[in-house]
Amino acid sequence: MPTSTAHDDTSAPAPADAPIDVPRGLKGVVVTDTALGAVRGREGFYHYRQYPAVELARTRTFEDVWHLMFHGDLPTAAQRTAFTARTAALRPLPDAVRVALPAIASGCADAGPLAALRTALSLAGAATGFQPLYDLTPAQRAEDALAACAWVPTLLTALHRLGRGLQPVEPRADLPYAANYLYMLTGEEPDPVRARAIEQYLISTIDHGFNASTFTARVIASTGADLAACLTGAIGALSGPLHGGAPSRALETLDAIGSPDRITSWIRERVLAGERIMGFGHAVYRTEDPRSRMLKEVARQFGGPRVEFAIEVERRVEEILAELKPGRELHTNVEFYAGVVMERCGLPREMFTPTFACARVVGWSANILEQAEDGKIIRPDARYVGPAPRPVP
Amino acid sequence: MPTSTAHDDTSAPAPADAPIDVPRGLKGVVVTDTALGAVRGREGFYHYRQYPAVELARTRTFEDVWHLMFHGDLPTAAQRTAFTARTAALRPLPDAVRVALPAIASGCADAGPLAALRTALSLAGAATGFQPLYDLTPAQRAEDALAACAWVPTLLTALHRLGRGLQPVEPRADLPYAANYLYMLTGEEPDPVRARAIEQYLISTIDHGFNASTFTARVIASTGADLAACLTGAIGALSGPLHGGAPSRALETLDAIGSPDRITSWIRERVLAGERIMGFGHAVYRTEDPRSRMLKEVARQFGGPRVEFAIEVERRVEEILAELKPGRELHTNVEFYAGVVMERCGLPREMFTPTFACARVVGWSANILEQAEDGKIIRPDARYVGPAPRPVP
Repeated sequence: MPTSTAHDDTSAPAPADAPIDVPRGLKGVVVTDTALGAVRGREGFYHYRQYPAVELARTRTFEDVWHLMFHGDLPTAAQRTAFTARTAALRPLPDAVRVALPAIASGCADAGPLAALRTALSLAGAATGFQPLYDLTPAQRAEDALAACAWVPTLLTALHRLGRGLQPVEPRADLPYAANYLYMLTGEEPDPVRARAIEQYLISTIDHGFNASTFTARVIASTGADLAACLTGAIGALSGPLHGGAPSRALETLDAIGSPDRITSWIRERVLAGERIMGFGHAVYRTEDPRSRMLKEVARQFGGPRVEFAIEVERRVEEILAELKPGRELHTNVEFYAGVVMERCGLPREMFTPTFACARVVGWSANILEQAEDGKIIRPDARYVGPAPRPVP
Repeated sequence: MPTSTAHDDTSAPAPADAPIDVPRGLKGVVVTDTALGAVRGREGFYHYRQYPAVELARTRTFEDVWHLMFHGDLPTAAQRTAFTARTAALRPLPDAVRVALPAIASGCADAGPLAALRTALSLAGAATGFQPLYDLTPAQRAEDALAACAWVPTLLTALHRLGRGLQPVEPRADLPYAANYLYMLTGEEPDPVRARAIEQYLISTIDHGFNASTFTARVIASTGADLAACLTGAIGALSGPLHGGAPSRALETLDAIGSPDRITSWIRERVLAGERIMGFGHAVYRTEDPRSRMLKEVARQFGGPRVEFAIEVERRVEEILAELKPGRELHTNVEFYAGVVMERCGLPREMFTPTFACARVVGWSANILEQAEDGKIIRPDARYVGPAPRPVP
């Protein structure tokens, strides 16, 4: 257990240490060891713990993978039953949050669902008495994390409904995670194919390397702050336009093209103008994004003109890029088919990024739990480049 | 202006880059250049922009130093008048926050003032329509930051009063920052000597190197998230026991000793047992903490038995340490006299760390504004150390 220290700087680098220069934005800088997974960009492969993530999304339940992330292995049949029941029982919100939720929904009406989630989850953790991570045992920390992850879909759907003048729908403990999410959103039990499609999307986006929100969660966790403090910061980082992603943007590309006969001219124009095409391209993957490949399968099973149109757009973009920018590998990223799948499952566009947050909170939490075992504060340095200090006038 | 990218990983290190190993906790790793200031541990010196911070605390107003942090220089007389009026006008809370504040105060009653502040400031930013940093001009960002900094004392005092069944006290635009803070806390106009003492404490703790909450604010800012998202994360990090500091702990040392005749035996016992004495020792300063030295002067002007007792405890601790741990420089840190000063000014102990937050939000905001000019996401890496991936069973 780390000991408490004075104010904010006792773990700062000792002045004798020479400053260590690294690439801007800490690119490539290894902050920590992790057993939670990795992304292999060249291979188009990523894994959670010891299992390929896309395989998990194809064959397992969300609760299975949540258990894997928290506990290091997939559950046995008995563990699955227990874990599913335990997390389902945590879905209802604390009373203090229910009371405040209409005011939060109304106050955050223009700021978007992530600002509302950030506020409501902050309150939920406080109202439930989340303690500093370093004051808790690993089991107690995991208990807080389970509750926080279980609340996120309840909070997001309640805030969404309140924002539309509707009453929140109470969670149902008898439905699996994804089905319950759709149920709370609409008030209707979802068709199993749609629920499974959303579940597969959720599983595939639980974690993905050491992104900025995950890093934020770990920096806050390294101070020993409580789990809600860590997650609140992570949600904030996720809301940043350089991070958060917006599966709705890829749909905007489809909308802008409009019809199959306009694909070629629309894309050629953008590519020749050097514009980025939303839903295409990825800094890590040098080959196909494995999430996109998996979600394309999911989309295909629905079929229909929108899905066919999306597939045709993908095909034409790749052809045109091969012609105009030869040698450059450029494929759809996770946003492209994620948007198509979520739209096909009836999710409103403003709930696309919140749906991503439902998945990612499990990844953040697993990272927070891992960071809490480390116990050392993350506290880098900066270089002063201003004018030399002089007396105050 | 940075362009938007897909989901969370497009700015991740390219797989070709070799991982860069650095000390644990990023100790000594230079994340960024800054013109905001620096801490020189060996010299016992720190500065804000181009001026020694302690000199600023001795001779300037809080608003002067706030202006310095935001705009790079101390205000002229006309600028001071304008800046003071402008920030004072921003003190009242948005209506959406007023409405929600009782529910937040009640929900966060057991979690402490920083959890309540985190929640309320998150809501205030959302209700005011804070936009992503990268969608704003520098002037618009600074406008949001001024509002956020102006709200913090109003929020903290209102939450504190609501938690005690009292009505919040509306801010007064005719009082300087620190005096208004004390006024909102108690409902009475403070005596000028106390208000000035608190102002000096506040100035001296606006910023202090690249601590974990400042770093958190900058990581979130680097994604382009809105200012409330950044500050919410920073408050979370500040609440961590390895970071936040607790000037009340040093008072607990004084309380535990109890009376002058017990000083020597109490301290010898602790030192011989290898225990840390709260309020003493600092990882950066190899000589006296300049904040402690300045706050000791402030405490001295009040005089009285408590201050004399504190000075005597300091003297005896240094003597006993020189005897028992020769060669080791160990002095009071900022917590020691900060606690004495705040107690002498009538602040309840639970408001000590929130008072620190009132000051630090200005430092965080200056860091966020500087980071937003950079435009590159902060996104390091981790090393996977778990078992090799294998097929899902």
